[in-house]
Amino acid sequence: MTGLAILGSTGSIGQSTLNVVRRQRRFRVVALTADQSAEALAAQVAEFRPAMHGLVARDGPGCLIAAATHPEVQVVVNAVVGAAGLDATLAALEAGKRVALANKESLVTAGELVLEAAARGGGLIVPIDSEHSAVLQCLAGGGRETLTRLTLTASGGPFRAWTPDQVAAATVSEALNHPTWAMGRKISVDSATLANKALEVIEAHHLFGLGYDAIHVVVHPQSIIHALCEFSDGSVLAQLGFPTMELPILYALTHPERLPDGGVRRFDPVAAGSLTFEPVRHDAFPTFALGVAAGRAGGTAPTVFNAANEVAVQAFLDGRVAFGRIPAVIEQALAAHTPVPADRLETVRQVDQWARVAAEVACC
Amino acid sequence: MTGLAILGSTGSIGQSTLNVVRRQRRFRVVALTADQSAEALAAQVAEFRPAMHGLVARDGPGCLIAAATHPEVQVVVNAVVGAAGLDATLAALEAGKRVALANKESLVTAGELVLEAAARGGGLIVPIDSEHSAVLQCLAGGGRETLTRLTLTASGGPFRAWTPDQVAAATVSEALNHPTWAMGRKISVDSATLANKALEVIEAHHLFGLGYDAIHVVVHPQSIIHALCEFSDGSVLAQLGFPTMELPILYALTHPERLPDGGVRRFDPVAAGSLTFEPVRHDAFPTFALGVAAGRAGGTAPTVFNAANEVAVQAFLDGRVAFGRIPAVIEQALAAHTPVPADRLETVRQVDQWARVAAEVACC
Repeated sequence: MTGLAILGSTGSIGQSTLNVVRRQRRFRVVALTADQSAEALAAQVAEFRPAMHGLVARDGPGCLIAAATHPEVQVVVNAVVGAAGLDATLAALEAGKRVALANKESLVTAGELVLEAAARGGGLIVPIDSEHSAVLQCLAGGGRETLTRLTLTASGGPFRAWTPDQVAAATVSEALNHPTWAMGRKISVDSATLANKALEVIEAHHLFGLGYDAIHVVVHPQSIIHALCEFSDGSVLAQLGFPTMELPILYALTHPERLPDGGVRRFDPVAAGSLTFEPVRHDAFPTFALGVAAGRAGGTAPTVFNAANEVAVQAFLDGRVAFGRIPAVIEQALAAHTPVPADRLETVRQVDQWARVAAEVACC
Repeated sequence: MTGLAILGSTGSIGQSTLNVVRRQRRFRVVALTADQSAEALAAQVAEFRPAMHGLVARDGPGCLIAAATHPEVQVVVNAVVGAAGLDATLAALEAGKRVALANKESLVTAGELVLEAAARGGGLIVPIDSEHSAVLQCLAGGGRETLTRLTLTASGGPFRAWTPDQVAAATVSEALNHPTWAMGRKISVDSATLANKALEVIEAHHLFGLGYDAIHVVVHPQSIIHALCEFSDGSVLAQLGFPTMELPILYALTHPERLPDGGVRRFDPVAAGSLTFEPVRHDAFPTFALGVAAGRAGGTAPTVFNAANEVAVQAFLDGRVAFGRIPAVIEQALAAHTPVPADRLETVRQVDQWARVAAEVACC
């Protein structure tokens, strides 16, 4: 039995993880944490009887660390939203755990520190993001040295075909209405701005050791092909399937093995219909280029991008700024920041805090 | 330097192999054979200076064996057309060579014997067919034990959208006009009848050890995705790219390694346009189901299917039978045959000869 800690267990990824656990007898839930959903957490605790559980809103963020480093835990599913997941990622990796990472913000805000913690503690990062899971599966043959180019696909979000003016005026309910993936609120807005895809590009840079020139994004509205890997001989491998997070979650728990699992809708290319691909529309989705530029700038620039994006998204969800203001808020924070090396946790924390204040000011 | 024998060097696969050799300094041409094209062979000999060469029409089929077992040869590219390639496949495998196999008829007509020869002699079969190369690449991570389903794609050939009556009356030039692949005459006709896809299903059965229920075919007119591999957890990997044989040829020469190669057009999903999938139309292409049924029947049934198909295709190319008669000729030969185990070369040879006569009679 593999002991699991699930951080963010009442969210979309947490619930999908528990679906996988219900089907597979190989996993035991050792720790569960949620942010604020006390009732949903209580129901999960009653069903799975974990050795420990914690509600961040009641018990404080220390419960994340306690869960992530629990001695009976082998795999930590980190599905916390935002940079708040960083400390648990670092602690789990330092403690030698496998981190099944849905919290891509950990890697974006402090990629070098996360990789260092893994190297030091003997931990392993396995992405849950469908795109990065796809890459990992395509590389299972040890092809990492011959990987020359990566193309992550993007659904394009709910505003894929909207004019820039229409996008700028989008409402909250429109932004949360994702065409192919059912997800939490923050990542749904990130998908609507394409910030999520910029975060994924930065994540891929850290996970697969590729330069930004070798990481591409293409819009693929059907979300069937999750990523394309080009190798040195020109060959391309792809991982595909009907959209579901349960498959990348299971794979993150078992990689490089696969467990037989009947819980995923079998892929049928005829039923999938046409698969189409389009370039990213930078006019309508400027947040994407801002994020990739921050990744290229390196150091603390992605820390600022991530923090400012979190603030801007929350302000949008609260009705305080228009959808079209999100990139402007991020851009303002980035413009006011001179990146420094992100090689100390203290630096990352300070820059993250500064960027949140700068972004809040920009929201007014 | 890897020593190559190229059997069928003046045909489409042979020429593509030599293109790869021109680009890559890792290969040395040790032996070249052609069927009848003396002039083209002489030009290749002048350019590549092989240790030996042979023209089957002049020197007899023994030159195929001499080339396939030449001591300086490590890899035999078998691009002979039809069951005439069997002896060279067997001899090369017995001699411990790697066989880069474009001659799928070897495996179809005598699959068990070919696998036995490989096991006995220490040889290795690596497919050149783009579909099977795709599977091999998807399995590079050692995923063969967890492979649950294979889907080979078919372009659908030049008559994909034609009515059954139109298909039945197709001319030779129409049959040779393949929409996505430039190939030799025999395989072009096989692609137009979908016999080629049935041969590939049988080939996949032998190469990957899968039952026929686990091997599917889907029509994919763009020939971009070459095969889909489904694993036990429901995940699907695919290999894709613009149609070219040079990539699977190079991979067959270097598997499981990849060599950097700039000779292949880089895949661009936006330039690829829509990728679509359709079921096989059995009404218009009855040869496909005949071939798969022969594979399922096993023993010498695929030997008969292959031999009768070779005869029927030649008769069609010679203007002796209509396109629509090809499946009828094959069906007649199969109906007159009671399959026996194909576990002795003598048996396979006798059945092959009998089926050729039976098919010739059916052509009259």
